[in-house]
Amino acid sequence: MPLHQASTRVWDTRRTEKKRRLEQVRAVADGKVLPTDKITAILEALILPGDRVVLEGNNQKQADFLSRMLAKVSPQKIHDLHMIMPSVSLPEHLDLFEQGIARKLDFAFSGSQSLRISQLLEDGQLEIGAIHTYIELYARLFVDLVPNVALIAGFKADRKGNLYTGASTEDTPALVEATAFKDGIVIAQVNELVDDETDLPRVDIPGSWVDFVVVADRPFFIEPLFTRDPRLIKPVHVLMAMMAIKGIYAKHQVQSLNHGIGFNTAAIELLLPTYGERLGLKGKICRHWTLNPHPTLIPAIESGWVETVHCFGGELGMEEYIRARPDIFFTGADGSMRSNRAFCQLAGQYAVDMFIGSTLQIDGLANSSTVTRGRLSGFGGAPNMGHDPHGRRHATPAWLDMIEEPDPMLPGRKLVVQMVETYQAGAKPSFVEKLEAVDVGKGAGMPLAPVMIYGQDVTHVLTEEGIAYLYRARSMEERRAMVAAVAGITDIGLGVDAKRVADLRRRELVVYPEDMGIRRSDASRSLLAAGNIADLVEWSGGLYQPPAKFRSW
Amino acid sequence: MPLHQASTRVWDTRRTEKKRRLEQVRAVADGKVLPTDKITAILEALILPGDRVVLEGNNQKQADFLSRMLAKVSPQKIHDLHMIMPSVSLPEHLDLFEQGIARKLDFAFSGSQSLRISQLLEDGQLEIGAIHTYIELYARLFVDLVPNVALIAGFKADRKGNLYTGASTEDTPALVEATAFKDGIVIAQVNELVDDETDLPRVDIPGSWVDFVVVADRPFFIEPLFTRDPRLIKPVHVLMAMMAIKGIYAKHQVQSLNHGIGFNTAAIELLLPTYGERLGLKGKICRHWTLNPHPTLIPAIESGWVETVHCFGGELGMEEYIRARPDIFFTGADGSMRSNRAFCQLAGQYAVDMFIGSTLQIDGLANSSTVTRGRLSGFGGAPNMGHDPHGRRHATPAWLDMIEEPDPMLPGRKLVVQMVETYQAGAKPSFVEKLEAVDVGKGAGMPLAPVMIYGQDVTHVLTEEGIAYLYRARSMEERRAMVAAVAGITDIGLGVDAKRVADLRRRELVVYPEDMGIRRSDASRSLLAAGNIADLVEWSGGLYQPPAKFRSW
Repeated sequence: MPLHQASTRVWDTRRTEKKRRLEQVRAVADGKVLPTDKITAILEALILPGDRVVLEGNNQKQADFLSRMLAKVSPQKIHDLHMIMPSVSLPEHLDLFEQGIARKLDFAFSGSQSLRISQLLEDGQLEIGAIHTYIELYARLFVDLVPNVALIAGFKADRKGNLYTGASTEDTPALVEATAFKDGIVIAQVNELVDDETDLPRVDIPGSWVDFVVVADRPFFIEPLFTRDPRLIKPVHVLMAMMAIKGIYAKHQVQSLNHGIGFNTAAIELLLPTYGERLGLKGKICRHWTLNPHPTLIPAIESGWVETVHCFGGELGMEEYIRARPDIFFTGADGSMRSNRAFCQLAGQYAVDMFIGSTLQIDGLANSSTVTRGRLSGFGGAPNMGHDPHGRRHATPAWLDMIEEPDPMLPGRKLVVQMVETYQAGAKPSFVEKLEAVDVGKGAGMPLAPVMIYGQDVTHVLTEEGIAYLYRARSMEERRAMVAAVAGITDIGLGVDAKRVADLRRRELVVYPEDMGIRRSDASRSLLAAGNIADLVEWSGGLYQPPAKFRSW
Repeated sequence: MPLHQASTRVWDTRRTEKKRRLEQVRAVADGKVLPTDKITAILEALILPGDRVVLEGNNQKQADFLSRMLAKVSPQKIHDLHMIMPSVSLPEHLDLFEQGIARKLDFAFSGSQSLRISQLLEDGQLEIGAIHTYIELYARLFVDLVPNVALIAGFKADRKGNLYTGASTEDTPALVEATAFKDGIVIAQVNELVDDETDLPRVDIPGSWVDFVVVADRPFFIEPLFTRDPRLIKPVHVLMAMMAIKGIYAKHQVQSLNHGIGFNTAAIELLLPTYGERLGLKGKICRHWTLNPHPTLIPAIESGWVETVHCFGGELGMEEYIRARPDIFFTGADGSMRSNRAFCQLAGQYAVDMFIGSTLQIDGLANSSTVTRGRLSGFGGAPNMGHDPHGRRHATPAWLDMIEEPDPMLPGRKLVVQMVETYQAGAKPSFVEKLEAVDVGKGAGMPLAPVMIYGQDVTHVLTEEGIAYLYRARSMEERRAMVAAVAGITDIGLGVDAKRVADLRRRELVVYPEDMGIRRSDASRSLLAAGNIADLVEWSGGLYQPPAKFRSW
């Protein structure tokens, strides 16, 4: 038997190095509190070239002060950083690369910075590790992307580092845990410093996980990304929403669900108290939700449709409404919301019957992507919510309803619904032979095309033409014909003949509005429970306080 | 447009009810601290009939004091509880049902109580909601199984409720978050109460999430479930481990992985510093791990194979070893491990190349289950780790290696390896025509058979006969033949003829040891880096302190 040879290895290099770095700033720090005006020099002491640095950029909450200050460090001192960012959403996030401070980027979503990422990549100033879904990125923090430093954001902190994140807790717990428990350095920017824990509304992150707090020069940046003004909902959205409610939600008894963001799903939310009520569906569908606090959900909540809502993050303007509805939302003892993107993504993956969302491009087999030419927009959460988790084992009526043959060895399926108009604005067809993502992937040197949701996971495609029940397709050829049958006058849609469509409708593999007893002429905006933002405010009893840009009064 | 009708609904029933219940025990409580000797009466005041009660039963950490005290409440006062338990592992967990205190059970794993659950179910004393994977169960806490009360366990608490869970943080954060932020009541049993936060090693759960702490009558129950004595590893395990290392790990460059528990995978861990070293694989495979701190991993860690290990929970005896290896394990500033089952399950699902585990029964298409006649053992984490998450988007060499055709629209795959001897102890074949789980499921009135891992997700089956590379099968018929080719002299194995096997081997769809240059006679126990527990202690430099039952000296 081989004998053990005494190891001479040192096993606490990270801990020793952390101690060394903390020592560097001890003189300038007041305990855990860092001076706002010296933060750039402090970052130069706490960060080393080549470090993996997590920078909190979420959908709603941005460590924007820390990212601006990081962009000011000397590239001679700090360079080749490997940035890990859930969301790349601010210009300074990319300034880091332009200035040579950072080199490699692992991220999940980019949004408004997607064009510039493509450009920097092309210019060789940025190297992409990978583009992830949110929880996939968090997962790697515990495996092969362990961070050296995390720069995060909260509302308030006390002098011991206890953190109140506010309603947008979002990604913070995941980012901090991976860093704090692997001898990384956690620095939190806050809007306000208080002396003692008793001055905090509650503790979202324990002080013993946080090394430093710093008061930002101004409150962190936050944007109302999930507000859709009902004024912009068109009759075609109403039509599609009616089909969704009758032909999918009611048909399969969808009780728990996630709505993506968009006017299509906003229309569904606003049709529940009217059209849904008329169909007698209250209490039978849409009882449990995992989504951001969409203002368009207010009428459904007020009229008693909604039992619970768990949120990824917050939404500007919804704070007081949520505070007044603790039976529905998850809130702390202080009354403000507690969101948590990791758990909400888990819930959306494992605990809900259905994901429904829009897309930009979809091919003949229902593969889809929002990555289009020149835009590396990333994935966010959709590929996670929008796939069938084979590790799920509990049964619900909707999940079981996806089984086509009576066989105890066949599992149920999550409903994954793609809801898309056959044409985008600008007369650009949504249905295409080949996703632009294929060429974007090639151009960016990605090993695979950045597909958002794979066709194999899509159970339904819904357009203004009708619904294709793809889970019932018995072959790829049939699947393709079903997609074509709802693809309208796009090239894909013209690829199926009238006789085949008639047969698909006869067999109820595809249904058109008239097959469901829905008259296109009934699809009127007057069915919406709220026609504009002011109506939503009224529904909320004045509790919803929309940001200025949504006010027309 | 419909006008909003002012709602008369009360929106804070949970909050009000919580306040009312807390008021009931105010007189007997000392702030947040409950008296140990009055806890049964207190539970009768804090819990109501029909409540959803989370009871922390993990793999390693049990809220056993609270469960014993709950079993003493009067069934006249408290009945029809809906228990939510990750792991049903102690007799008193089921006493609750026998005594009429609880009625419905949602759980993930049962283990030693699996026989009795079946019996209670048959006798109509227990109703099963569903059997889940761990993270699926956590997910539902945020959706349709929101708890009223959570009974949890920690090592130490201060008087403000700040909790130090010890190394087995495990499920606690998920269970507490879902309860605390939906106006549920959180009660923590601890081994020790300290006055102040500064007397705690660290804070794992903030006090503002915890309503009450109570010092248990004795330290919580903990069991070394993940320790495998190398003495019990047989030459056949060594042979299978050699095949795994050469024919799977090295072939596909598996860099991050999860090992299930068992002598098969323990053999692999112990072969890395010997056989793996000889093949020149150090630094090329097995760098990042998600698993409990298996003592059999010590030699691989000591000889420099392992870069990181993130753990679901702790393991008795490994505390000091982990404390001395912070570069490898996730530890707090205090030095003790921080585990987290939710994040480790996420990591095992989304961030690792491979899951490898054993099973009890596997059918001709590689569907498998550990649920056998009369035993509702549950799922634990395997179905989650053991499936291909379609929501993954980042590429690794192993993941890409599962793609058989060059097509940018084809995603990679997670490696899911089932490692099983063709016969179990007692000459019971592992390969069967029909899983016993099918009849168990029917008998228990489950809508589907309790399948652990579906064959569609299995990429490799490894037996003492050889490896079947199932991801390469081009039809169900070929898949079946490949499984049969490694199923030995079981009925399944006898269902394929020699000519077909020769063809499968020629095409390298199936390999036998000799095809890989492995001689069966070389598979000797002498290859194990440690032959017994004492060797592991020696490898660890005396840091590993095995529980008494594993000591033979």
